[in-house]
Amino acid sequence: MKDNSKISNAVIRRLPRYRRILEELLAKNVERISSNELSALTGYTASQIRQDFNNFGGFGQQGYGYNVKSLFTQIGLILGLDREYKMIIVGCGNLGQAIANYANYYKRGFIITAMFDVNPKIIGIKINDIEVQDYENLEEYLENNPIDIGIICTTKNSAQDVADKLVAGKVKGIWNFAPADIQVSDDVVLENVHLSDSLNTLTYYINYNDRT
Amino acid sequence: MKDNSKISNAVIRRLPRYRRILEELLAKNVERISSNELSALTGYTASQIRQDFNNFGGFGQQGYGYNVKSLFTQIGLILGLDREYKMIIVGCGNLGQAIANYANYYKRGFIITAMFDVNPKIIGIKINDIEVQDYENLEEYLENNPIDIGIICTTKNSAQDVADKLVAGKVKGIWNFAPADIQVSDDVVLENVHLSDSLNTLTYYINYNDRT
Repeated sequence: MKDNSKISNAVIRRLPRYRRILEELLAKNVERISSNELSALTGYTASQIRQDFNNFGGFGQQGYGYNVKSLFTQIGLILGLDREYKMIIVGCGNLGQAIANYANYYKRGFIITAMFDVNPKIIGIKINDIEVQDYENLEEYLENNPIDIGIICTTKNSAQDVADKLVAGKVKGIWNFAPADIQVSDDVVLENVHLSDSLNTLTYYINYNDRT
Repeated sequence: MKDNSKISNAVIRRLPRYRRILEELLAKNVERISSNELSALTGYTASQIRQDFNNFGGFGQQGYGYNVKSLFTQIGLILGLDREYKMIIVGCGNLGQAIANYANYYKRGFIITAMFDVNPKIIGIKINDIEVQDYENLEEYLENNPIDIGIICTTKNSAQDVADKLVAGKVKGIWNFAPADIQVSDDVVLENVHLSDSLNTLTYYINYNDRT
């Protein structure tokens, strides 16, 4: 694998999409695919696709196209999907429970090891066999259990406090669903899911269609 | 406003983020902001920011910066946030309920008018005063009620069937949370929230940090 340090974020963000589409091709027993065919499936241009894969040393052969299984596996390796991640969820309302079910359903190396909430009505309930703990236990839990990813499903106002505790507890990454721009130290990876950004992009295109 | 037809999707996708940050500045009574200050808050370069805003005719004055309130309002107008959107949710498990609460909490012109599910245990329950209806009622509901946005929170396998019914029922946009690449006709806007893409980007950067 080439040194990835110069790969742009835009390229990295396209890789999971390639991988999803390759997975569907694998399920249909497709063995090879050209960049033109991948273009039709992804909506990216064939030259964009070839350029993206060249960042990682190619993968394809002229006139043959890409081997679907090999490409799927290689992209998974690049994305770090050949190992397990221990994750905890903070905030166990509907969204936190939905994320727990999501991780449980996929079982692709993402293991929820604990869940936390402040609400006495939620503390103690079991979600996929994991009992929701009191948020007050979070710091002690992180001292005793190394965690890769902390998932924030709290309200906007609590998000930074949770993030601070996760960072102090040495998580490697934070997956933030709270509608807040939280700050973390440079050694922690932060990935935000801002639902409003997605919804507002949708409304832009709805109005754009209306105008044309 | 300039003709928006040549504005790239990448620019459009940055606008909601600008708007969120401007909203926080407004809440702090900040009146003006320079592209350099916006750069520090957004992580985009100042020249990128100026270029983005030039797509829509500028907004700023040399040496003065941007008026926060005016910029916030203008971006909202571009994104179509000066009107109301009627939305329905199909699939009312934890995720569907989380999205319903989310729309209800924000009350920013997004009105959930109906919710649908196939599960007899969920049909009939009320979520924010809206009673979940049988999915079998969806087509009739759409015949009688014009809906702007259909939100899919079902399993992967049901998503295309739901999308087909939403398209036939003349929704203008679909907000898809199911982990499926659904197909819709060209006159319907499709916005996918692929949680796995976000999670896999996070794992990439965690491993990248581990390697460096």
